[in-house]
Amino acid sequence: MIDDILNQIKDGKLSVEDAKKQLNSFENLGFAKVDHNRKERTGFPEVIYGEGKTPEQIISIIKAMQSRNDDVLATRVSKEKADVILQQLPECSYSEIARVLYWKEDKPLQTKEDRYIAIICAGTSDLAVAEEAALTAELFGSRVHRIYDVGVAGLHRLLHHLEEIQGATVSVVIAGMEGALASVVGGLVSHPVIAVPTSVGYGANLQGISTLLAMLNSCSSGTSVVNIDNGFGGAYNAVMIDRIARGMAID
Amino acid sequence: MIDDILNQIKDGKLSVEDAKKQLNSFENLGFAKVDHNRKERTGFPEVIYGEGKTPEQIISIIKAMQSRNDDVLATRVSKEKADVILQQLPECSYSEIARVLYWKEDKPLQTKEDRYIAIICAGTSDLAVAEEAALTAELFGSRVHRIYDVGVAGLHRLLHHLEEIQGATVSVVIAGMEGALASVVGGLVSHPVIAVPTSVGYGANLQGISTLLAMLNSCSSGTSVVNIDNGFGGAYNAVMIDRIARGMAID
Amino acid sequence: MIDDILNQIKDGKLSVEDAKKQLNSFENLGFAKVDHNRKERTGFPEVIYGEGKTPEQIISIIKAMQSRNDDVLATRVSKEKADVILQQLPECSYSEIARVLYWKEDKPLQTKEDRYIAIICAGTSDLAVAEEAALTAELFGSRVHRIYDVGVAGLHRLLHHLEEIQGATVSVVIAGMEGALASVVGGLVSHPVIAVPTSVGYGANLQGISTLLAMLNSCSSGTSVVNIDNGFGGAYNAVMIDRIARGMAID
Amino acid sequence: MIDDILNQIKDGKLSVEDAKKQLNSFENLGFAKVDHNRKERTGFPEVIYGEGKTPEQIISIIKAMQSRNDDVLATRVSKEKADVILQQLPECSYSEIARVLYWKEDKPLQTKEDRYIAIICAGTSDLAVAEEAALTAELFGSRVHRIYDVGVAGLHRLLHHLEEIQGATVSVVIAGMEGALASVVGGLVSHPVIAVPTSVGYGANLQGISTLLAMLNSCSSGTSVVNIDNGFGGAYNAVMIDRIARGMAID
Amino acid sequence: MIDDILNQIKDGKLSVEDAKKQLNSFENLGFAKVDHNRKERTGFPEVIYGEGKTPEQIISIIKAMQSRNDDVLATRVSKEKADVILQQLPECSYSEIARVLYWKEDKPLQTKEDRYIAIICAGTSDLAVAEEAALTAELFGSRVHRIYDVGVAGLHRLLHHLEEIQGATVSVVIAGMEGALASVVGGLVSHPVIAVPTSVGYGANLQGISTLLAMLNSCSSGTSVVNIDNGFGGAYNAVMIDRIARGMAID
Amino acid sequence: MIDDILNQIKDGKLSVEDAKKQLNSFENLGFAKVDHNRKERTGFPEVIYGEGKTPEQIISIIKAMQSRNDDVLATRVSKEKADVILQQLPECSYSEIARVLYWKEDKPLQTKEDRYIAIICAGTSDLAVAEEAALTAELFGSRVHRIYDVGVAGLHRLLHHLEEIQGATVSVVIAGMEGALASVVGGLVSHPVIAVPTSVGYGANLQGISTLLAMLNSCSSGTSVVNIDNGFGGAYNAVMIDRIARGMAID
Amino acid sequence: MIDDILNQIKDGKLSVEDAKKQLNSFENLGFAKVDHNRKERTGFPEVIYGEGKTPEQIISIIKAMQSRNDDVLATRVSKEKADVILQQLPECSYSEIARVLYWKEDKPLQTKEDRYIAIICAGTSDLAVAEEAALTAELFGSRVHRIYDVGVAGLHRLLHHLEEIQGATVSVVIAGMEGALASVVGGLVSHPVIAVPTSVGYGANLQGISTLLAMLNSCSSGTSVVNIDNGFGGAYNAVMIDRIARGMAID
Amino acid sequence: MIDDILNQIKDGKLSVEDAKKQLNSFENLGFAKVDHNRKERTGFPEVIYGEGKTPEQIISIIKAMQSRNDDVLATRVSKEKADVILQQLPECSYSEIARVLYWKEDKPLQTKEDRYIAIICAGTSDLAVAEEAALTAELFGSRVHRIYDVGVAGLHRLLHHLEEIQGATVSVVIAGMEGALASVVGGLVSHPVIAVPTSVGYGANLQGISTLLAMLNSCSSGTSVVNIDNGFGGAYNAVMIDRIARGMAID
Repeated sequence: MIDDILNQIKDGKLSVEDAKKQLNSFENLGFAKVDHNRKERTGFPEVIYGEGKTPEQIISIIKAMQSRNDDVLATRVSKEKADVILQQLPECSYSEIARVLYWKEDKPLQTKEDRYIAIICAGTSDLAVAEEAALTAELFGSRVHRIYDVGVAGLHRLLHHLEEIQGATVSVVIAGMEGALASVVGGLVSHPVIAVPTSVGYGANLQGISTLLAMLNSCSSGTSVVNIDNGFGGAYNAVMIDRIARGMAID
Repeated sequence: MIDDILNQIKDGKLSVEDAKKQLNSFENLGFAKVDHNRKERTGFPEVIYGEGKTPEQIISIIKAMQSRNDDVLATRVSKEKADVILQQLPECSYSEIARVLYWKEDKPLQTKEDRYIAIICAGTSDLAVAEEAALTAELFGSRVHRIYDVGVAGLHRLLHHLEEIQGATVSVVIAGMEGALASVVGGLVSHPVIAVPTSVGYGANLQGISTLLAMLNSCSSGTSVVNIDNGFGGAYNAVMIDRIARGMAID
Repeated sequence: MIDDILNQIKDGKLSVEDAKKQLNSFENLGFAKVDHNRKERTGFPEVIYGEGKTPEQIISIIKAMQSRNDDVLATRVSKEKADVILQQLPECSYSEIARVLYWKEDKPLQTKEDRYIAIICAGTSDLAVAEEAALTAELFGSRVHRIYDVGVAGLHRLLHHLEEIQGATVSVVIAGMEGALASVVGGLVSHPVIAVPTSVGYGANLQGISTLLAMLNSCSSGTSVVNIDNGFGGAYNAVMIDRIARGMAID
Repeated sequence: MIDDILNQIKDGKLSVEDAKKQLNSFENLGFAKVDHNRKERTGFPEVIYGEGKTPEQIISIIKAMQSRNDDVLATRVSKEKADVILQQLPECSYSEIARVLYWKEDKPLQTKEDRYIAIICAGTSDLAVAEEAALTAELFGSRVHRIYDVGVAGLHRLLHHLEEIQGATVSVVIAGMEGALASVVGGLVSHPVIAVPTSVGYGANLQGISTLLAMLNSCSSGTSVVNIDNGFGGAYNAVMIDRIARGMAID
Repeated sequence: MIDDILNQIKDGKLSVEDAKKQLNSFENLGFAKVDHNRKERTGFPEVIYGEGKTPEQIISIIKAMQSRNDDVLATRVSKEKADVILQQLPECSYSEIARVLYWKEDKPLQTKEDRYIAIICAGTSDLAVAEEAALTAELFGSRVHRIYDVGVAGLHRLLHHLEEIQGATVSVVIAGMEGALASVVGGLVSHPVIAVPTSVGYGANLQGISTLLAMLNSCSSGTSVVNIDNGFGGAYNAVMIDRIARGMAID
Repeated sequence: MIDDILNQIKDGKLSVEDAKKQLNSFENLGFAKVDHNRKERTGFPEVIYGEGKTPEQIISIIKAMQSRNDDVLATRVSKEKADVILQQLPECSYSEIARVLYWKEDKPLQTKEDRYIAIICAGTSDLAVAEEAALTAELFGSRVHRIYDVGVAGLHRLLHHLEEIQGATVSVVIAGMEGALASVVGGLVSHPVIAVPTSVGYGANLQGISTLLAMLNSCSSGTSVVNIDNGFGGAYNAVMIDRIARGMAID
Repeated sequence: MIDDILNQIKDGKLSVEDAKKQLNSFENLGFAKVDHNRKERTGFPEVIYGEGKTPEQIISIIKAMQSRNDDVLATRVSKEKADVILQQLPECSYSEIARVLYWKEDKPLQTKEDRYIAIICAGTSDLAVAEEAALTAELFGSRVHRIYDVGVAGLHRLLHHLEEIQGATVSVVIAGMEGALASVVGGLVSHPVIAVPTSVGYGANLQGISTLLAMLNSCSSGTSVVNIDNGFGGAYNAVMIDRIARGMAID
Repeated sequence: MIDDILNQIKDGKLSVEDAKKQLNSFENLGFAKVDHNRKERTGFPEVIYGEGKTPEQIISIIKAMQSRNDDVLATRVSKEKADVILQQLPECSYSEIARVLYWKEDKPLQTKEDRYIAIICAGTSDLAVAEEAALTAELFGSRVHRIYDVGVAGLHRLLHHLEEIQGATVSVVIAGMEGALASVVGGLVSHPVIAVPTSVGYGANLQGISTLLAMLNSCSSGTSVVNIDNGFGGAYNAVMIDRIARGMAID
């Protein structure tokens, strides 16, 4: 691309002023198209972080995305905001538990792909984060197996799903409290594990810091960690790996 | 005991001055015999905390205890100190891994009692703390089953010992890193679990604080926690429970 | 149990397929019956953690438990939720101070057992956690002595109850602020002490973290700690020990 | 595998006692071969964590691994220990900067695979962790591009390597101080980024905690984090993803 | 000034008592006029910190300042308070996003000075702090270039403004999350950078502490840091430097 | 006192049983009269900590104290609670800023004593804590000089009060933010300084923890610290010292 | 003093230039004599903080002090440094346990004053800090009662000294671990308690931070806290109070 | 500069290939000359961070810099390293207290400029950091006034230097402990203050974290903070501002 521009200058087809403008816009560096056609390039739709945005702001962003035929994914959207948005955009769907609002044009949410991501969570209190992860992965085109309520306090429940977990391409493990589930899963599989600490627990949980620290200290290799309650981020990493597994050309 | 003293005054067998002295010494309050005949009352020998004491100080304490026929248990005794002590007190034994020096007059270390305490540790790096716990329990007269190197990263190793663990009266679980072992054991047994966090791990372990926090947040009921690297304290609690199980009258 | 299954196969009484199913369900490992008949096995009824659950969810869980003749214990139930629940389930009892809702079929709450657990708390602000502990222990079948408002700032109040405290099988010590009560009790008794830090205190209490750290650093051996404000957990540990003392076969 | 065992019992080829032993060893559960033939199953050789082990212990583990024709990777091996080990095992190699000792039978360290992992580090002080990561990845069979000393304080150095970084399958970003490099790389690529915080920095770095927290808060999606200074863990995750990309059957 | 007083005593024009009073009031030390004519001396109007003050209190302070012809700047004024204040003082202006209320007599907010301060922020969530900074700087008489939403996750957006940023006299960089923007800007410019961490982010952001620590550990020299969310303080520092650049005599 | 009891036994005037009771009640130990006649012994009235108590509870405690002719001091009483209480107990006084409710029978609040305690605070935001301290001291019978709004950012204001501060018997310094006022005052006086950190400040104040740590690290000898926002505790210490200065016999 | 100077000017005895110099030296402000004749004014000799100073530096400071007939107190002086200093200044005394070096011209260390300070410490590990406090107090002219090794784990030992403790003018309580001793003493006495946390304890002691936090949260009023291991600071506060009690005019 | 390149292409003076190379090296972006001719552009010589580098590495870097006629500044160079370096490079100077090694070709260290930077430090323990700052500033061409040992515990010493401090263009305030000096100076001057916390202090100083937090919470506007012990960074910021004041064209 730089070649193109420089050759055009040489050939007099491009003024020095215009070339300078293009080079200054850094689109020729390869990372400048993000905003204009992110989906085409990376396969990931734009994502709206709903917290701190008004329903009106979210609606106008969604409309802009729909006009470009982009899929829509908005996280951290409260029930109250969603009600306002859905009145104006009834074609969107909303999951209250996951606080996720989304729209996928003409396409089923579930893929027919054989490979799948295991979304594993410890207890019912982790459901919100787990569903944020699960819906994110599905909207980004991955197949998801939900394996919920399999905390280590009742190990048999987890082992009951062993084969299903081992069959996944990548696991996203969501847990609060002591976060032991990430280590136990990490010790049972030979694929990457993305651990998502949640802010669930009594006093010394420190809003998830204890869980986060525990997961970072996991004795199981092959485990990496994202921020507290960041179900979206956990899924995003998993989808990246799933796409690599499916041989999808991204770059 | 107060009765005795008061009756002796009444009967003129004890002068007011002497009675006052005894009462002032608080021996009549029931908690004053600790120092003079602690072993007889509680069944626990005096324990010497070796850190910060010179070999000479330790030797003189041991001699005093031996002269009272007390068992001797000294924790946190470095190899260097132990060498000096053993030259003068060759009848003592020393465990380098546990940094424990002890002497038990005429008695085998192992009890023939059926009931036992399970000392369970996650990895080889936790061995020092585990052995401090195991020797403490044995010196205090309990039977110990050592179940070592059964961290959750290789869950099958732990499950292999399941029956043995479930058969214990109480478990002491020693682990560093994310400390998940305490939660997993807690979920597998119906007896009390004493968790001992160790200061083993990479950077964000924070010298055991991460493990400590994780264990306190354990999702398994029936688990309580002692201080970091405190193998002695973990064992002390377990022995107390073991004695209750064996119907030993303490009070 | 594995023997049974394998022998049945050998004898042709069980098909390979059925045996595999049973083994896969991990019920043969000894830890699989928890969910189906937990009370029979461990003596502990299921416990409902009320926080984050709707009254309707709690009601349906209680009904399921009642249909199995299980005792019911729900912790962290707010007054508002309890009012809704009691309208539909007037046979249940509710303690507002402890935020505990419970039902014990046809049985008195107090046991006639001689042995008892001492529930000791420092100040009136710790009452909620103390009562959560006391009711938990009583519902699990233990006898409880409540020894309240005996903080170390007025040491004589504590010493006044000395004999009663020393007579217990196990003590649960509940305190906020500097948590000194746990150390002082630990120094006065020769039975296990379970310390429960509470989130009571001025600024540098850090929502109970200061108390928690202080208790973990207790200079008294024989003390272990559970999470902040976790009255239920403290009682659960104490009941386990009390049952061992009473020779109740659990496993 | 369970089928085999059960059928053999049925056919009388296996005694109940022997079957029980095999089942008890949990090899039939699918996760039990780890210790005996881990390399065959997962493609990863056993790894020796050198810290806290004596040279003699390391030597005996290496010999055991060599006798099974396993590759050898020992991390956190100090120069002093390595000198002792290399005298007895001169066939091993040692990298002082990475503190890694390794042996790869008859095979070149570099693979001819086109795909590669980018190991990117911010400054010369991060070299030890970066080389631990790079050698780990190479020993596990991945190709590595080392892109060092490209911290964000001189952004042009990083941008100079832009194409090379974007061409990788996965990036491992190693940085101390404010760890901004992870976010910047995360914003420039569309493949997974594994961030490794290092304990490099002035006072308020808190031995890497500041860097760790910053990386967890990265505004770039697609970034996950491992523990401080854990170059091995970062590489392990990256190799897992690289193998998925190369279509290597693991399970 | 001391000279004046002392000479007046010598000449009998000032009584010892009066001289003592003046010296005691410390106005002769050069730092005592702050309260009486702060604006004349430092060029900075008094600033009202609105948090914790009632609308009535703020109104009376503003009136006092207006009567002295001082400019008025009140920070941290909520919409509710501002509504009350503006009813009584309609001549004031209010920025809801910045929560800043101000009044500048007869003067345009924008200066015609060529030199300018770059106020740079990472994301839309940092806008409130950025606008507090921008308005503060403008009210204090500096020219401001707002360069918003240029977080490092999309580096091209930042580079697009490179020349504008490099042309500033001083930059105020406002960012939450990992705060990498401060380091990146610091590496691109050769003027001072004042970094303002914001409390924007997921769980492990710790209300801005993570960002603060990251910024303090910036690998770019020439960066200093103010308190979390302290847009006012960041601007105040920048204006001081801007005035030095413009050769304004202050002392 | 023990003498008395013992002699009475010897003389047959007291039965053994009664003597035992008295000794068991620990009243003979000298610290048992606290609850019955605390005011007579220590000169300090009982203090009611209002937080977490209902107006009704506070009213009944006050009535009990009034019936014993005790002065009444209740701290942390919200405006809402005070309104309820004052309706029933109109003889009480209430300070809204200090959140203190009190009653002093027939006596003026101000003492005529020459000696005084200096209550010094940095800014208007510290007023609540300062007034809690000032009223506490006055109710306990000390004379108080209020020296408010003398933070170190305008050092001349503080120096203006220098003689007054130096003339006090003891100073209570109340400050938020960086708490520098405690060090500066400590360096200017030769009497004890009690520092009270307040939870006033921007983000990195950490609810007063930063101020607390700063004060503990004060470079001025003669300064000690109480808990965050604990105006009552600061005053209590100061009054103790003031009474010593006034030669009041306490013990 | 200002009067003197000003009158001398008026009378022509002092030139304006000289007066200005004196006033500029701030000696006229009342707080300027500290360095020149601190002992005369405050009764406290200069104190040398030995850490980070060479023996030579300490020697020259001591010589300067001796030439002014000042008492000498140097804290934190290691054995190595002391050996060097004592060779040159054999008239000095050194306490190895307290790491304190001192010289008191012609005067006995012990005062004949009746009033005394109680220096109370919990265990033998706190001895160094306790002795630093005790020697400091004695060198500053106070009488000291040492009450050592009375930790709350053996409450009877503390109660044995009750009368002695209650008889003190002020107590300095030195304790590590959970620091409960400060609260217990605070509850037993009606004089001020200065608490000194020490860095003694297992893992979660956090180098004394846990003890510090616990002491700040003490439920006993009348307790204030100084920095960790700061025996000197604790004694300094106590001596100030003791002097007030003895009616010593300081100002 | 981009213009130049593009015009040369247009004029045929530069081949497309060469232009591309230059543009790819990002020199055309304006921030690419840093490494090759940093001094010319920014006026700042390269700085060598000595920690973690061998003497040999430092020597070779210095030689490279000398060959380019660059000034040399190496920070954090221990005495041992400096001895080795000075043997080979006797033309360099070394300050042991500042741990700074430097070389300034043919030029005096002191500038004749009137404007100056005030380097102010609290105590003798802060000298190392203060001298690192002072030498850095001098080597970068600024004039420095050293105002040392003026901690707030003896406020008169600070006030004695008031005029000198107020006359500076910018102040660098270096303090440990509670860091109050930064606030006090900030309140006395109307120029920017750069605060440098040092890791000097007793236990709760937390290696400078307490000081850092205190400084960030300074109640004086116009103060910004750099990392703990970062004297170099403090000076770097100050020099930037000093150059602006001196009208030096940088960009």
